[in-house]
Amino acid sequence: MAASTASTADELHNLRHSLAHVLAQAVLKIYPNTKITIGPPIEYGCYYDFLFETPITAEDFPAIEKEMRKVINQAQTFRCDELSTADAKKFWKERGQPFKVELIEDLEKNEGVKTVTHYANIGPKGEETFVDLCRGGHVESTKEIAADGYKIMSLAGAYWRGDEKREQLTRIYVAAFPSKEELKQYLDQMEEAKRRDHRKLGKELDLFTFSELVGPGLPLWTARGTMLRNLLDAYVWELRSAKGYERVTIPHITKKDLYETSGHWQKFSEELFRITTREGHEFCMKPMNCPHHTQIYACQQRSYRDLPQRYAETTTCYRDEQTGELHGLSRVRSFTQDDAHVFCRQSQVKEEILNIWEIVDTFYATVGFGKLRVRLSLHDPNAMDKYLGTPEVWKKAEAALREIAVDRKADFFEAPGEAAFYGPKVDFIAKDSIGREWQVATIQLDSNMPVRFDLYCVNETGEQERIVMIHAAIMGSLERFLSIFIEHHAGLFPLWVAPTQVAIVPIADIHEFYGKEMETRLKEAGMRIRYLDHSESLGKRIRQAEQDRIPYVLVMGDKEVKDKMVAVRNVRTKQQVVLPVAEFFDKAMEEIRGRRLEGLIG
Amino acid sequence: MAASTASTADELHNLRHSLAHVLAQAVLKIYPNTKITIGPPIEYGCYYDFLFETPITAEDFPAIEKEMRKVINQAQTFRCDELSTADAKKFWKERGQPFKVELIEDLEKNEGVKTVTHYANIGPKGEETFVDLCRGGHVESTKEIAADGYKIMSLAGAYWRGDEKREQLTRIYVAAFPSKEELKQYLDQMEEAKRRDHRKLGKELDLFTFSELVGPGLPLWTARGTMLRNLLDAYVWELRSAKGYERVTIPHITKKDLYETSGHWQKFSEELFRITTREGHEFCMKPMNCPHHTQIYACQQRSYRDLPQRYAETTTCYRDEQTGELHGLSRVRSFTQDDAHVFCRQSQVKEEILNIWEIVDTFYATVGFGKLRVRLSLHDPNAMDKYLGTPEVWKKAEAALREIAVDRKADFFEAPGEAAFYGPKVDFIAKDSIGREWQVATIQLDSNMPVRFDLYCVNETGEQERIVMIHAAIMGSLERFLSIFIEHHAGLFPLWVAPTQVAIVPIADIHEFYGKEMETRLKEAGMRIRYLDHSESLGKRIRQAEQDRIPYVLVMGDKEVKDKMVAVRNVRTKQQVVLPVAEFFDKAMEEIRGRRLEGLIG
Repeated sequence: MAASTASTADELHNLRHSLAHVLAQAVLKIYPNTKITIGPPIEYGCYYDFLFETPITAEDFPAIEKEMRKVINQAQTFRCDELSTADAKKFWKERGQPFKVELIEDLEKNEGVKTVTHYANIGPKGEETFVDLCRGGHVESTKEIAADGYKIMSLAGAYWRGDEKREQLTRIYVAAFPSKEELKQYLDQMEEAKRRDHRKLGKELDLFTFSELVGPGLPLWTARGTMLRNLLDAYVWELRSAKGYERVTIPHITKKDLYETSGHWQKFSEELFRITTREGHEFCMKPMNCPHHTQIYACQQRSYRDLPQRYAETTTCYRDEQTGELHGLSRVRSFTQDDAHVFCRQSQVKEEILNIWEIVDTFYATVGFGKLRVRLSLHDPNAMDKYLGTPEVWKKAEAALREIAVDRKADFFEAPGEAAFYGPKVDFIAKDSIGREWQVATIQLDSNMPVRFDLYCVNETGEQERIVMIHAAIMGSLERFLSIFIEHHAGLFPLWVAPTQVAIVPIADIHEFYGKEMETRLKEAGMRIRYLDHSESLGKRIRQAEQDRIPYVLVMGDKEVKDKMVAVRNVRTKQQVVLPVAEFFDKAMEEIRGRRLEGLIG
Repeated sequence: MAASTASTADELHNLRHSLAHVLAQAVLKIYPNTKITIGPPIEYGCYYDFLFETPITAEDFPAIEKEMRKVINQAQTFRCDELSTADAKKFWKERGQPFKVELIEDLEKNEGVKTVTHYANIGPKGEETFVDLCRGGHVESTKEIAADGYKIMSLAGAYWRGDEKREQLTRIYVAAFPSKEELKQYLDQMEEAKRRDHRKLGKELDLFTFSELVGPGLPLWTARGTMLRNLLDAYVWELRSAKGYERVTIPHITKKDLYETSGHWQKFSEELFRITTREGHEFCMKPMNCPHHTQIYACQQRSYRDLPQRYAETTTCYRDEQTGELHGLSRVRSFTQDDAHVFCRQSQVKEEILNIWEIVDTFYATVGFGKLRVRLSLHDPNAMDKYLGTPEVWKKAEAALREIAVDRKADFFEAPGEAAFYGPKVDFIAKDSIGREWQVATIQLDSNMPVRFDLYCVNETGEQERIVMIHAAIMGSLERFLSIFIEHHAGLFPLWVAPTQVAIVPIADIHEFYGKEMETRLKEAGMRIRYLDHSESLGKRIRQAEQDRIPYVLVMGDKEVKDKMVAVRNVRTKQQVVLPVAEFFDKAMEEIRGRRLEGLIG
């Protein structure tokens, strides 16, 4: 079986798992006194944690890779041996591998096992070349591993068992794919992702910053970043406004009581930023907005004629994430949701969800993600204790969502166990320009909060009728969305949303008057302009504008001034065209007003 | 000396202080076993705290007022006696007044006094009618008190010494003025203030709500209230945007470190909502925005060419106010500031402050407050320990503000001791439609934060030049501003900012088609419409629209449909005019676009 045919998830798992054994075998060959621990497969390959006698560096990678290649080329097979735990412990003690002994002791203690399995690699002459404590899942022969389909990526420190009081080990990460081509594709994607990293671009393009005094995970948005956020948010609001949404405003904190009623106090307890007031009351920061919004709904009696009530709010939520888990804008402690809650009757659910779905589709197409995949996130029937409400309520809600997904002809799949604790969700998944998938928008149907908060309307017959809630976020967390959006566009945004839209570059001082006139005219039309005067060289200024990802650079010299023209450089296409000023103006305005993804000029 | 001439602050103080003695005398006459405590003058009269044997009620007020009148009419004089503290304690012990004894003991202990003064009222026959422990400040004769210039207003519970572990006393509030006319004017103003109370109107007009689950002092803004906030805020932004301001975005929390650097940690410590993270770090919620904004300025090196940097942000701040001090929107725990900080060179200060001053004047004139009074809030040279920075820095900054106030020909006065701890302020004071004054906008000049955060620009000669900061809020706290704005307009707002602008009231079902057509047309133009269909009587619907303070009510019957006209009721003037639809539309749009204070129709 050729390596490149390892196409199913299981085959890929076996390939990567086997490669971890190959890595450990190679390491022990070169560094015989190394203590081995564990080596699982991961998303793009595998890793193995070692305790080296003396530290290794990236300079040692080629030697290890070479040794691995030898093992692969020997077409070693895997043999499974079942041993009593006593024999297994004896085996590892004799070989001076204390971590393996500890693993077996834990298995005995925690799982009550009496036997374990060892997997031995068998060399060309039938000899044992390497043995590992392992539950299996391997290729038949190392020959199935493409000798040019893997690459040692990096080293990292990792505590044994993740416990900072235990030994610090060295983790070796390996990328592993069924073929050289697939490895290359992955490495190229990594390279491209690094080039687009939103943390790097955020700084270069002056979009956001972190302050050591303010603290990690708490981004501060500069004027340019805030412009980007606000333009995107205003677009979401425009789409929502057309569907009858209204804005509301809530504080960022609450008494504990609100979350005891909603059930979030128990669910979120670890992640809540808690506050004890000077009078000794227990408050906390909101990690989500739904419970607050229920209190606006509940502030007066609602007639069925007032429904749906559609509340939208772009507001910041707070979660006490651990420092080690923070990452740029992707994982933060303060994140801003473009959140909305619809309070409606059961009979209005379908129309309301369809309206939100339409907003999601329109928004993501406009900002450049095309058609989204959809995950129906359902409850796990075997873990009802994780959820509020009865199985009947869940099934009914899930059936409604499924029907809508079918109606919408969505590209959807079902995922039991992925629901929110109060109801099933429709999760939208966007694929970015380098092929990575991200969960973005979400619609959640919730029959449970209305029970907890006793939300109802007075219906046609004067009776109290239980309502339902729909939770909907379009960008979701603006911070997380922007991390995706920045990387997707590599910082070169569509004109309508670019913090700076046009750079004006007069060639020499005699062209400045013309340039300033142009600046005034474009600014009056609301365009966001950078004026680069002639104090730097022309080439340097154009490069600067390109580096700053300004979509259009207008260059003007004698010819342009004389003919009332402008030379327009489209930074995306790298094309330059010369146009009458009025034509540039009209096309640029059309591009902005139409929120067009592609440039109309050059 | 006639009562009505008691015009200076001292005379008013003496009158009210004397009346407190009269009140206590009257109470002891009617309820001889009452224990007396203290009775100071207050803004509109005086109060006295008593421990009654059996509780009194408002029904007892006339009898007390009558007894007070008797005392006044007796033209009693005040005699001052100086006693040793020992004699004074003996005096009060003998009369069974333990609170007075305690007061004297405290004076001995805390202030080391050896003697105290008693003021005795002397009746027409030279007899002592009442004695109080008192530092003085009285009229010569109770005859100077207008017998029809006072009124017992209310009762309240009050702990002795404000300590909830001590006796609960009954406080009697008395309004007191030099004349009957002035009392009436005050009572009328109170009545009008009650009618306009923003807490009452906020509920009636569905602008905001409080939730017991969320907690006191944390307003939640409904769709209508949010509309009002956002329209006012958008107007401030429009004015700022024209002056080159840019929006930025900061989180609502920070590590302690930021405020240790700024000095707020020490200054604000009691009022900070503190958070300890799960990792044990100390965070808190921001009670103001300036330190966060410095971190955006400081995220890159700034050239003098980049200055001024003008950051604006409408963002919510949090202060741990005590429950007893909360009051509607006037005193809350979460308040939203329309804050701005200008980072500029010393040489740019004057122009920047003038620009802000212009925004303040334009904004307040537009929203209906006319010309504002100005207080220059300066440092107190005798309490430099309250402030950051040296006297020289303060004097320089204050001179700059004074010069600008003179330049602007402002109606200003100086108030030493009223500065912020980091710099002097220009505070703007608005007078509302019932004559009350409120501090609103503020401009603060700050040379100290830039030192603390080491903020500079690189100047023309390549050197680091210390910059200055200007803090500016236009509405200040939106919550507090709205409490004033709602009461000033008694909930009937100028058209451009009214949450609902026009009510459409078709007389009968045959006029609904016409009404709906009108609704569509006005909505398409962006007007905010309430459609009141014919399910209720015409009179009831018009009353409803008036109660909801909708500025224009459009009524349409046979005549209007036939002639393509509309009957417009101006709810403010109570005038009704009949106009062609197009004329109504044009005038209403002009009124909105021009942000006019007065209606153009009817």
